[in-house]
Amino acid sequence: MTGRLLVTYQLRCTAAEAPARARALAVEQSVEMPPEAIADDALRARVLGRVESIEPDPQGPGLQRATLSLSANTVGDDPAQLLNMLFGNCALQPDVALVDAHLPDTLVDALPGPRFGIDGWRAAIGPTAAGRPLSCTALKPQGMPPEDLARLAYAFARAGIDVIKDDHGIADQPAAPFDRRVPAVQAAVERANREKAGLGDPALAGHRTVYAPHVNGAPARLERQLALVRDEGVGAVLACPMLIGAGAFAGLVRERAGVPVMAHPAFAGGRISPALLLGRLWRLFGADATIFPNWGGRFAFGRDECLAIADAAREPLGRHLPALPVPAGGMRVERCGEMLDAFGPATMLLIGGDLLAAGPAMPARAAAFASALRAARTAGGAFPADRGSAAA
Amino acid sequence: MTGRLLVTYQLRCTAAEAPARARALAVEQSVEMPPEAIADDALRARVLGRVESIEPDPQGPGLQRATLSLSANTVGDDPAQLLNMLFGNCALQPDVALVDAHLPDTLVDALPGPRFGIDGWRAAIGPTAAGRPLSCTALKPQGMPPEDLARLAYAFARAGIDVIKDDHGIADQPAAPFDRRVPAVQAAVERANREKAGLGDPALAGHRTVYAPHVNGAPARLERQLALVRDEGVGAVLACPMLIGAGAFAGLVRERAGVPVMAHPAFAGGRISPALLLGRLWRLFGADATIFPNWGGRFAFGRDECLAIADAAREPLGRHLPALPVPAGGMRVERCGEMLDAFGPATMLLIGGDLLAAGPAMPARAAAFASALRAARTAGGAFPADRGSAAA
Repeated sequence: MTGRLLVTYQLRCTAAEAPARARALAVEQSVEMPPEAIADDALRARVLGRVESIEPDPQGPGLQRATLSLSANTVGDDPAQLLNMLFGNCALQPDVALVDAHLPDTLVDALPGPRFGIDGWRAAIGPTAAGRPLSCTALKPQGMPPEDLARLAYAFARAGIDVIKDDHGIADQPAAPFDRRVPAVQAAVERANREKAGLGDPALAGHRTVYAPHVNGAPARLERQLALVRDEGVGAVLACPMLIGAGAFAGLVRERAGVPVMAHPAFAGGRISPALLLGRLWRLFGADATIFPNWGGRFAFGRDECLAIADAAREPLGRHLPALPVPAGGMRVERCGEMLDAFGPATMLLIGGDLLAAGPAMPARAAAFASALRAARTAGGAFPADRGSAAA
Repeated sequence: MTGRLLVTYQLRCTAAEAPARARALAVEQSVEMPPEAIADDALRARVLGRVESIEPDPQGPGLQRATLSLSANTVGDDPAQLLNMLFGNCALQPDVALVDAHLPDTLVDALPGPRFGIDGWRAAIGPTAAGRPLSCTALKPQGMPPEDLARLAYAFARAGIDVIKDDHGIADQPAAPFDRRVPAVQAAVERANREKAGLGDPALAGHRTVYAPHVNGAPARLERQLALVRDEGVGAVLACPMLIGAGAFAGLVRERAGVPVMAHPAFAGGRISPALLLGRLWRLFGADATIFPNWGGRFAFGRDECLAIADAAREPLGRHLPALPVPAGGMRVERCGEMLDAFGPATMLLIGGDLLAAGPAMPARAAAFASALRAARTAGGAFPADRGSAAA
């Protein structure tokens, strides 16, 4: 592994304090000992973090922006160790936030990246998905038995929803254990897919709804879940990298699912730029799609932050495929046009509660959502070009 | 799984806004959909989070404290899913912090807890460790080759240090790959242990220094590392639960290391009370010792927070053994007395950089640190009784 990472931190201190604070941070995130106590000069030069630049932070007075460089050799090729080097100890220092990180080409190349990417999602859904935005909804609430979740999934699939994911709160609990829930839901989705093929509706001819169950837990449990996903022919999986760990996400879910992987941001708060964490890093760790709370919903992410996540998921990044941005978190069907104007067609829109809130009208509302996104393919100039994507 | 979790959150809002904010949080952390859209009344009553109480937060105006109850059935028995229910989506809402969580007995009982506990550490070190505080230091900086790390470990072990851990930045990098580093360091520590047995120094008779290498990475890599730990007869391991994931920590490291496990707080910042996360939860997930940044060092934790972590690590907790609190993070040998006065003898003091900064005098300084803690056994009344511990 050659080269150095360029890592930008926001420091809460005055401009006068910034050089000393940045030097202390460079020590903390590399050798974690007094540099003068390192007897080997060559070792110190190689491993000690360096302060490359300091400037005022545009976010406000009392904030500075320091860019450090770290040796790629301190990371090796491991996602968990990358997070350790970027934000291990300084996660415990509330005056530090992680703004951005540029990895050297060798490290970018060594990380797994998406296995299926945006085209992989579209291929799984079938020819009707080519070049258009995708619809996604969620099975919820947790606490429902497998047969009720399967009934709900059937209704969504018949309505033409592209991807149905488990609510991230549904894991492997007594109400709907993974090994009973997943076969039941998958069978229901397959039945709906067969029925759509016979409807004679050209908009749904060949349309395959894909189910993404939530895999969660310790590695042994994840392995059992992933084996079931493969055995049942399930089309995708959902995982929370911060709950299962970056290593399990990259090394287990991405490696063994055999289908596109959707990352969920649960437990991913903290002082790391969402574009870096949910966009670039999770894509490098193997996410084929990344869910994030869009602006104007139940979460505090702003418009620029959300667009930056989408950019990081789709922009050129070494040898890696682009990942689908998935804005979510309290979205409504009425906002689809606005979201597509902002994010472009290489996007998956996730709307959950708003469909369920329709009660008996849920199937019609789900069908309206799904068909709006199918129609968006032909809208052409109504959307801006995909932001930074070669895979639109 | 029966009963309900009682989870206390800090909300940044006015007292007038608090009831609605708390209700929204109860929805977010349970059903994550409009409750009125749940047709099944019994399901709603069972699974929807409930607001149990709201009161002003003593930390300041504009802050409220809301206690919610969540069904233990929504957790099952899984550490990762427990974190999901406690702080999954609301980790993305910056107006919410997680203050405390009391788990029902069934859930406490279902979680693994420490396998060795405080007595297990003392037993590993030998009879000289009975009833006294333990000394710990770190191999650093990363970037050193295995033979230099082994030389350093030998010097620490000869000085009578009880536990030598890898710096948490040392993982499985090219400079010192795990499978070359760990056998070399372990052999050096064993050589020192044999030599101490022949010194005729009663203070070191039977004293075994224990090496705790850092295991990190994806599950397959962790399994290889843990197999090597067992094959080489290594006495302990160090892991970062937030880097490898709570599931891998509880289900892989705790289950397969076969030796006491030390938890490191890297990447564990955020808005979760340190006493809850580093104390109670990591103990429940299997930590036999928990490292935290002590007050007066390079981190911002206050004295009360640190004492609360130690309480959570050692207080009665169902069937579970107590875990060792390990204050650290820029401590100096001169502060040992003060730290022991505060934490009592069922504590491990971790001092790293301050020993290395002594340069050629390092062995003498390490010996002074180690012997001060061995002597503390006989100081008797000089320490307060272990805070809340039956295992002192």
